[in-house]
Amino acid sequence: MKTRIISACVMLPLLILVYLGGYWLMGAAILVAAMGIHELYHGFEATGVKPCKPIGFASIAGLYAIHILAPENQTLLLFWMAVCVMACLLYGFNVEERKIEDMTSTLLGIMYVVFFSYHIVLIDQSVHRILIWLVFLAAFGTDVMAYFTGMALGKHKLCPKLSPKKSIEGAVGGTISSMVFCGLFGYFLVDGMLWQCAVIGLSGSIAAQLGDLSASAIKRQMGIKDYGNLIPGHGGILDRFDSVLFTAPFIYYTMQFVLY
Amino acid sequence: MKTRIISACVMLPLLILVYLGGYWLMGAAILVAAMGIHELYHGFEATGVKPCKPIGFASIAGLYAIHILAPENQTLLLFWMAVCVMACLLYGFNVEERKIEDMTSTLLGIMYVVFFSYHIVLIDQSVHRILIWLVFLAAFGTDVMAYFTGMALGKHKLCPKLSPKKSIEGAVGGTISSMVFCGLFGYFLVDGMLWQCAVIGLSGSIAAQLGDLSASAIKRQMGIKDYGNLIPGHGGILDRFDSVLFTAPFIYYTMQFVLY
Repeated sequence: MKTRIISACVMLPLLILVYLGGYWLMGAAILVAAMGIHELYHGFEATGVKPCKPIGFASIAGLYAIHILAPENQTLLLFWMAVCVMACLLYGFNVEERKIEDMTSTLLGIMYVVFFSYHIVLIDQSVHRILIWLVFLAAFGTDVMAYFTGMALGKHKLCPKLSPKKSIEGAVGGTISSMVFCGLFGYFLVDGMLWQCAVIGLSGSIAAQLGDLSASAIKRQMGIKDYGNLIPGHGGILDRFDSVLFTAPFIYYTMQFVLY
Repeated sequence: MKTRIISACVMLPLLILVYLGGYWLMGAAILVAAMGIHELYHGFEATGVKPCKPIGFASIAGLYAIHILAPENQTLLLFWMAVCVMACLLYGFNVEERKIEDMTSTLLGIMYVVFFSYHIVLIDQSVHRILIWLVFLAAFGTDVMAYFTGMALGKHKLCPKLSPKKSIEGAVGGTISSMVFCGLFGYFLVDGMLWQCAVIGLSGSIAAQLGDLSASAIKRQMGIKDYGNLIPGHGGILDRFDSVLFTAPFIYYTMQFVLY
């Protein structure tokens, strides 16, 4: 519970950036991507793998340079991806010093941290930019309500090997709450879009829980408890944003299907 | 030299498929992707890593389903990528049986083999579909001419640790030849597009050589000589198509910059 309150305090400045949107939110996304790459690659290093940080950071610079110069150009986005994959492969040319895991881990960081977090910016710059709030409403709404529902009703373990405290009842409670929160948000604040936003809330809630479990699985494999130590004793940026990394793309693509 | 002649024989049926284009070429691309995933993951298994073949094959099915149902929809292509990354992460949920390399190697296969080879189809279905020939002209033209130039003039090693027989002179000869071949192709067969096709030939030749060296580096890291045994004694599909995997995306994006 204490972690959740501290998280909430970290989130307050973030909420201001979400409200401001545009370059402010893009700056926040870049910061999250850069710190996330640093933390994830640091975690890999704990297992003896050496991802290439310069490629990771260069991928962030390249992605946002493309975004600023040609915001709507998805061909350039695919080009960016191809270049990132090639850069990871070229990194392996020094066969005596590098292992194949060094390349593949570099690529995972780019796709998971940089590409996923970029969807925050994509949603923010879409026609329905107000829906950016749903990314955070689904992620943190699910987290908080799953916790309370689980505390009150939790009996059946969800995924005991991965995250021993989570219950199926909590997962269901979190999902329903996210649908209700997002539906109400849509009804009152987005031109009566009750069901569209409820569907987005459902998708975002599933994403949030998968994102949370994914981060747990990666950390378990790495043999670390937290990615970082940004908030002493309560982990790094990836520990706080593990749900958001998944809700952002899930919600962006759900928006494409539901709204357009 | 013998390998090159045998390669050429394997390429003849391919050339017919390239000429036919459309669904024929798409079928060939799907086959190359599926066999490539099989071979690459098999190579990973030699190092004790276990990539998930069902995810690899499902990614091919998903990509081409999207392509057939919505050919021009790049948002769906980004969606496909996000789903592939998530699938690889979810694969790691079974923390007791799977390692983090199992997820990252699965992702590398999808991005390197499936995504890269898909650019053949993208070029084939573009406005200038005749330029699909440049993918193969650049790849095999560079390979053959680098071999002959290297035999005649080669003195300085290009990359001795990775590929001991390649020389700088051969690389330069291959690059210039590719520019000349592609330039002449453009001049006579594509409305006098001499310089545009020469630029594409330059880009494709650099790609072909990087693709060749990348495959060597990956195989070296895996401790294998060839990916497969499709042509006994002369390797598998990835050994024959290592250059094409890189020329296809390089040429596709160069086309976007040079022609549009």
